[in-house]
Amino acid sequence: MTLTMAELAQALEARLWGDGAQEVHGAAEAGQAGAGQISLAMAPAYAEKLTSGSIAILAEGMDPEALGLKAAILVPRPRVAMAGLTRAFDRGPELAPGIHPSAVIDPSAEIPSDAAIGPFVAIGARVRIGQGARIASHVSIGRDTVIGRDATIHPGARIAHEVTIGDRVILHPGSSIGADGFSFVTPEPSGVEEIRHTLGERQGIREQHWTRIHSLGGVEIGDDVELGANSTIDRGTIRATRVGRGTKIDNQVQVGHNCTIGEDVMLCGLVGIAGSARIGNRVVLGGQVGVSDNIFVGDDVIAGGATKIFTNAPAGRVLLGSPAVKMETQVEAQKNIRRLPRLYAQVAELRETVKKLMEKRAGDDPDRA
Amino acid sequence: MTLTMAELAQALEARLWGDGAQEVHGAAEAGQAGAGQISLAMAPAYAEKLTSGSIAILAEGMDPEALGLKAAILVPRPRVAMAGLTRAFDRGPELAPGIHPSAVIDPSAEIPSDAAIGPFVAIGARVRIGQGARIASHVSIGRDTVIGRDATIHPGARIAHEVTIGDRVILHPGSSIGADGFSFVTPEPSGVEEIRHTLGERQGIREQHWTRIHSLGGVEIGDDVELGANSTIDRGTIRATRVGRGTKIDNQVQVGHNCTIGEDVMLCGLVGIAGSARIGNRVVLGGQVGVSDNIFVGDDVIAGGATKIFTNAPAGRVLLGSPAVKMETQVEAQKNIRRLPRLYAQVAELRETVKKLMEKRAGDDPDRA
Amino acid sequence: MTLTMAELAQALEARLWGDGAQEVHGAAEAGQAGAGQISLAMAPAYAEKLTSGSIAILAEGMDPEALGLKAAILVPRPRVAMAGLTRAFDRGPELAPGIHPSAVIDPSAEIPSDAAIGPFVAIGARVRIGQGARIASHVSIGRDTVIGRDATIHPGARIAHEVTIGDRVILHPGSSIGADGFSFVTPEPSGVEEIRHTLGERQGIREQHWTRIHSLGGVEIGDDVELGANSTIDRGTIRATRVGRGTKIDNQVQVGHNCTIGEDVMLCGLVGIAGSARIGNRVVLGGQVGVSDNIFVGDDVIAGGATKIFTNAPAGRVLLGSPAVKMETQVEAQKNIRRLPRLYAQVAELRETVKKLMEKRAGDDPDRA
Repeated sequence: MTLTMAELAQALEARLWGDGAQEVHGAAEAGQAGAGQISLAMAPAYAEKLTSGSIAILAEGMDPEALGLKAAILVPRPRVAMAGLTRAFDRGPELAPGIHPSAVIDPSAEIPSDAAIGPFVAIGARVRIGQGARIASHVSIGRDTVIGRDATIHPGARIAHEVTIGDRVILHPGSSIGADGFSFVTPEPSGVEEIRHTLGERQGIREQHWTRIHSLGGVEIGDDVELGANSTIDRGTIRATRVGRGTKIDNQVQVGHNCTIGEDVMLCGLVGIAGSARIGNRVVLGGQVGVSDNIFVGDDVIAGGATKIFTNAPAGRVLLGSPAVKMETQVEAQKNIRRLPRLYAQVAELRETVKKLMEKRAGDDPDRA
Repeated sequence: MTLTMAELAQALEARLWGDGAQEVHGAAEAGQAGAGQISLAMAPAYAEKLTSGSIAILAEGMDPEALGLKAAILVPRPRVAMAGLTRAFDRGPELAPGIHPSAVIDPSAEIPSDAAIGPFVAIGARVRIGQGARIASHVSIGRDTVIGRDATIHPGARIAHEVTIGDRVILHPGSSIGADGFSFVTPEPSGVEEIRHTLGERQGIREQHWTRIHSLGGVEIGDDVELGANSTIDRGTIRATRVGRGTKIDNQVQVGHNCTIGEDVMLCGLVGIAGSARIGNRVVLGGQVGVSDNIFVGDDVIAGGATKIFTNAPAGRVLLGSPAVKMETQVEAQKNIRRLPRLYAQVAELRETVKKLMEKRAGDDPDRA
Repeated sequence: MTLTMAELAQALEARLWGDGAQEVHGAAEAGQAGAGQISLAMAPAYAEKLTSGSIAILAEGMDPEALGLKAAILVPRPRVAMAGLTRAFDRGPELAPGIHPSAVIDPSAEIPSDAAIGPFVAIGARVRIGQGARIASHVSIGRDTVIGRDATIHPGARIAHEVTIGDRVILHPGSSIGADGFSFVTPEPSGVEEIRHTLGERQGIREQHWTRIHSLGGVEIGDDVELGANSTIDRGTIRATRVGRGTKIDNQVQVGHNCTIGEDVMLCGLVGIAGSARIGNRVVLGGQVGVSDNIFVGDDVIAGGATKIFTNAPAGRVLLGSPAVKMETQVEAQKNIRRLPRLYAQVAELRETVKKLMEKRAGDDPDRA
């Protein structure tokens, strides 16, 4: 991909400075740019590394003339510019158009004429794929699944039967949508059911075998969802597991059966959400966060890394810790734990002092001690 | 699948009320059932949503006549009924019988005549597959592996060489059995070995390269085991890693090399069990629980979500927290931490009071202060 | 594989005792060895299980004559001997040499004549594979990727485009290298950006949609790296994500975009390293450790299982806990928390005593109380 600086500035909706005819065919960190690459220098530390006569993206307020640049694009919000810039130059995995002859596609499946379908793809009966789909090698799609327009499905993604997926969805390698939920029952109440009532006490312990509850519900994924490598979203028991529009899910995230995930949610790596939990809109869960089954996490909740949410969380709350509490409560609790050695020393000293006071008092007045 | 209400009641070993000839071809949550679907209404909140003239599953003690139903099945333990009901209506992924022509099967492998083997399956030398096996697309099975009767192996599961798997096992997409263990040694004792003795102190720090310990042992999986999507069970070093009969493993669980997992165990999502740990029978580990290497977790232990078990856990214990302690101890500890601000205030006040007492005493009797 | 005891002793660089002509064709734990298998008995508890006339590996200082052995190999450091022994007998997955006819390889890819390439492998344009490569079934390799000599790539590994991999690398089933980074931006500052400044306080909450930052950088993997089953390493945004020579990564580990991982590092199962973190050389992170984005972890840091590292960690530190602190600080903090019930009791008693002292004082001298 080659653009002129003028075209790139227009694509980024940003201000051009200098020679708009300069050609750009890639981007690099400042100090590492080769010929024709634009340097990213949106912070002063990076600007120092620019060489005279080069081209760069700067933050508004920086001075391209003083830096001796040939051309520059000045952006108001650098990370937003990164989105536009990287999109402009992303060549992606380059899937060849058309259906690879090795693909095994059920004759009843509907594949649009403009789809790119890679080697060793398996597509089941009555599957419907939207226009512009790009499906890489080794992907499997189960019977009766529907996928919207402009999907990008990377190698080895596993989509089960009776799954519904919106438009512009991106599924990364090895991700799995619609595996059976983890749902079992014992003929008699199990130990887990017992301790939920007794909070830890157990009467007699018995043998218990697990009987499977099958998963008849599918999965419904909204538009513009992205699902990371090796992440998993299980199918529902009776109704579908749901992930709302615009939600972004990182690698190795587990979403249990029957969960409802809202819109514009962000789930970072290794997050685990247990069965039947409900996650509101715009929730952000940091890496390795856990959410217990059957609880809800309100709209706009933000949880820091490794937070473990065991109980319902009201909308807008900022959470941290295990068990999750308000972030400021957690920061305070950690401070209190760090100060404990001093507290222990103070109490020991107090006890000594008071003991002496008592002894003295007894000495002053033996009858009343 | 279509059943009459009478047939379904019989399948669930439950009591029929009303018109047993009504036909059922699926199930839905109360309020969402279409024609011919049976409503699940085993709690009063759901029963309120039932429409007159419909068919439903109720809990024993509820009144189908007062709800205006046409027919109902009354069950004593609702989750047990769910197992039977969902099994009755599960059509599953519908694997076509026979061996797909694209499958690559070593001539020395034994495949039963009734097996269903999907597209792009690779099966190695001397593999033996039991009767009734259903092996979906993209599965790989390494040399000398044995799989029992009625296996269900979902797309992209990875089974390595010299693995033994029992009857009726279910392996979900992307699960891996028999990858090499994570086992390395440094020619000189490593920093990790050093701090295990010194509890944190380190003398000189040296260069250290990791030399690989290969994994000659396989994996042995008992009957009726289920392994979730993208979960991994590594092979043993000298003897096999073992998972006992009836154990159920959720998605993204990691079981290290040489581990022994008992029978009827339940491991929830993102659990990690380090190498050579031994897990007893009927143990239940909640989501994101961790178990250190080389320890044992006794029979019937239950650990809540995100519990981190660093030391041996006796049979029957209910654990919580990091490090894991008895659940009631953890609940108490959390309470004690939450109450710390008050304790700090009390101690500060005490110090002030005692200081004044000391000053007064000194004022009363300067010689003795 | 069959060796004589003399050959095996030489391979292990260890001392032979007894009949060097005895043949060995495998190894087993003491008490479980069959004919021709060498028993591992490097600790006294195992030596007790040896049968007279058998062959064994012992630790230096043990007495093969007293144990009645026919031949023995005496090793100074047992785990190091395990490395040599298991390597000697590892037959591995046995990939057939040559290119399987089902593989789909772009004509512009360079494949050495001695490579073993399994069924259903897909290799993109301009890929270069080094000599001695063994690539198992279902592997995909994206365009312009380069892999060094003697690679072992297990079934279903996913290598994206523009990835560079060194010599002797081992990739386990389902591992993913070079999926897109998890990097998004909101047009206006997001709630997460806000709370990083305010530490938890939020002003107004707004709608926010996530705009994707594409990943133009690739991944660079050094020589002798091993990557576990279903682990994931994302590609960088502008420059490559890097993993240094000799680093070993267990199963289900997530390494975010732009990370730099040093040499001879060990990352255990379920570790999560967020984007742009820098990990020094010889760092060891136990199972389920988490590292926040954009921080650094110095050379030779060791973190125990489930440690959560939120801030920069200086070189050589031994860490534990969440948030991570020095191991001895964490052990002390846990002790302090366990002792809290006693502290609460002591303070309550002190308050009672001081209250009485004050009352007595007031009684002694009402004017001054």
